[in-house]
Amino acid sequence: MSLDFNIEKPDLSMKNEIQEKIDNLNKPKGSLGRLEELAMQICLIQQTLSPKLTAPCHLLFGGDHGIEKEGVSVSPREVTWQQMINFTKGGGGVNMFCRQSGFTLKIVDVGVDYDLTPYPQIINRKIARGTANFLHQEAMTQPQFKKAIEIGKELVDEAVANNSNIISIGEMGIANTSPSSIWMSLFENIPLNECIGAGAGLNSKGVEHKKEILSKALEKFLKEIPNYTTEEAIRYFGGFEMVAAIGAMLRAAEKRVIILVDGFIMSACALAAIKLCPAAKEYMIFCHSGDESGHKMMLEKMGAKPLLNLGLRLGEGTGALCAFPIIDSSVRMINQMNNFENANITKYF
Amino acid sequence: MSLDFNIEKPDLSMKNEIQEKIDNLNKPKGSLGRLEELAMQICLIQQTLSPKLTAPCHLLFGGDHGIEKEGVSVSPREVTWQQMINFTKGGGGVNMFCRQSGFTLKIVDVGVDYDLTPYPQIINRKIARGTANFLHQEAMTQPQFKKAIEIGKELVDEAVANNSNIISIGEMGIANTSPSSIWMSLFENIPLNECIGAGAGLNSKGVEHKKEILSKALEKFLKEIPNYTTEEAIRYFGGFEMVAAIGAMLRAAEKRVIILVDGFIMSACALAAIKLCPAAKEYMIFCHSGDESGHKMMLEKMGAKPLLNLGLRLGEGTGALCAFPIIDSSVRMINQMNNFENANITKYF
Repeated sequence: MSLDFNIEKPDLSMKNEIQEKIDNLNKPKGSLGRLEELAMQICLIQQTLSPKLTAPCHLLFGGDHGIEKEGVSVSPREVTWQQMINFTKGGGGVNMFCRQSGFTLKIVDVGVDYDLTPYPQIINRKIARGTANFLHQEAMTQPQFKKAIEIGKELVDEAVANNSNIISIGEMGIANTSPSSIWMSLFENIPLNECIGAGAGLNSKGVEHKKEILSKALEKFLKEIPNYTTEEAIRYFGGFEMVAAIGAMLRAAEKRVIILVDGFIMSACALAAIKLCPAAKEYMIFCHSGDESGHKMMLEKMGAKPLLNLGLRLGEGTGALCAFPIIDSSVRMINQMNNFENANITKYF
Repeated sequence: MSLDFNIEKPDLSMKNEIQEKIDNLNKPKGSLGRLEELAMQICLIQQTLSPKLTAPCHLLFGGDHGIEKEGVSVSPREVTWQQMINFTKGGGGVNMFCRQSGFTLKIVDVGVDYDLTPYPQIINRKIARGTANFLHQEAMTQPQFKKAIEIGKELVDEAVANNSNIISIGEMGIANTSPSSIWMSLFENIPLNECIGAGAGLNSKGVEHKKEILSKALEKFLKEIPNYTTEEAIRYFGGFEMVAAIGAMLRAAEKRVIILVDGFIMSACALAAIKLCPAAKEYMIFCHSGDESGHKMMLEKMGAKPLLNLGLRLGEGTGALCAFPIIDSSVRMINQMNNFENANITKYF
């Protein structure tokens, strides 16, 4: 792999000690279910019996997609920049969740097709005004790909410098379920049709059209680059915001930072990141399983058990943020609950 | 019905106006899934477009069960009082969740088999030191039943006087999955065996024994009182803490207070409350579907869609409290998100 990340799986030597602490909290063994599994994962990531979540940070990457020109999305391209501006005003779904859970929000323009420089709250890392249309050519060049990875890396480094040990990642990019579906098909060996859904709200005719366009694009790619590498597949179809997200995930894993994975699009990015560096998965918490066709299947194939299924399909990272309080609960559990001895309770099994 | 509650369904005349507000928030229609449904329910309960959650309060009722003597539970009876004391020290699962979400915790002894008067933080409403053993006789008398209902009512009135418009309810009572299973069988017409599970952790032999005991008890009841009323079924099998919970739910519904329903035992109490007063259901949010055998089936039959399934089976109301941040998110959503006009976003459908 040409990308320069050095990701190690967490050391498992503390596992028994952590499990013992969890089992000795004053509750029937296993009775806090997924919270106990989360606590284990977080303790292993942080190599401690008393984990902490510090300075949570939400990275929201925005970018436009050439493939949008083919009418594969219910929303028009202008919604990307309009929403980016809306986020600066605090009125988006993502803002509401960030306020609720105390996340610092970083809004990053990686490739929006609009001049956003009048908005200083938007971090300007624009690579181009949208990707190229992958129905006809690769979405981004090799240098653009590297740049997008670097942007993700840079933002994580900044968060870590500000003491963050947990990040969530979201995206704003009209049409980005399209590359997500293709990645899922390529990386999981699932027929493309099973990977394509309604996105933000296509009708059945719209979905049929999307299937046609994406099939054509995929066919062309496979003919041109039959022995493609993971990186080539990412680069040919991906959005700048998606590649930045992959860079952020890989850097976070390298830095042993907890990664909250959002819905369909971010799961596809997580899948791509894991394809590049399998150990990255150990740092990820899969937060939400949407109803987008194939999302459940993708998560299952990845062996990921999402925390929530609340029918969210807004993107922006809202599914990840919505799950944060549960992750917070798991850390509070292991730190704050008494054990059987200091609670003076008969340990009943 | 001999109980004196006057519960009305929320007026639906605002429904269209609320839906319009939700649909006009800057997001694809329906894309915040269950949060949108929650916002609708809460707006209808509060009859407003700008709902609020104020002074959330958690009522934790404790009581012991005569049926525990038959070995239907993995934990011994003493765990009830030990945990009640532990809750006063802040070290239980319920304490941790209450602190996280700013709930006032009221620990109420309705029928624990131990003298808890040395602990002033425990509200002393002890009716008796545990119920009678329903394998041989009714669990509680008619006056005891009324008293338990009144205790639930009193605690809700106190919470409302302190400005609470949302309450969650939990329980501590070793063996209380047993009456829950019987209620489920009686009120939903489901064969008893399908309603019985491992409780806090019985092995398969333990579950078999539990099935035998509960079948015998149910047979005896049906022979003695073939034309039983709902109230009689509640009284014959219920725990004091469970009947207090039913009283609390009915009073909360009467006062238009949102009710967070926890896992298996509280779902059984909710079922009983709905059997008594069907309109009460409109005020309930079902928070967690556990893995206890039959819990999913019970919720389905009630038409309840639980928010979470995290494998929690601790009781104490922890499943309800764990879901609170999501309910909070739904209220923040409708109050804080911009609409398409003030966000200057193309309304795309």
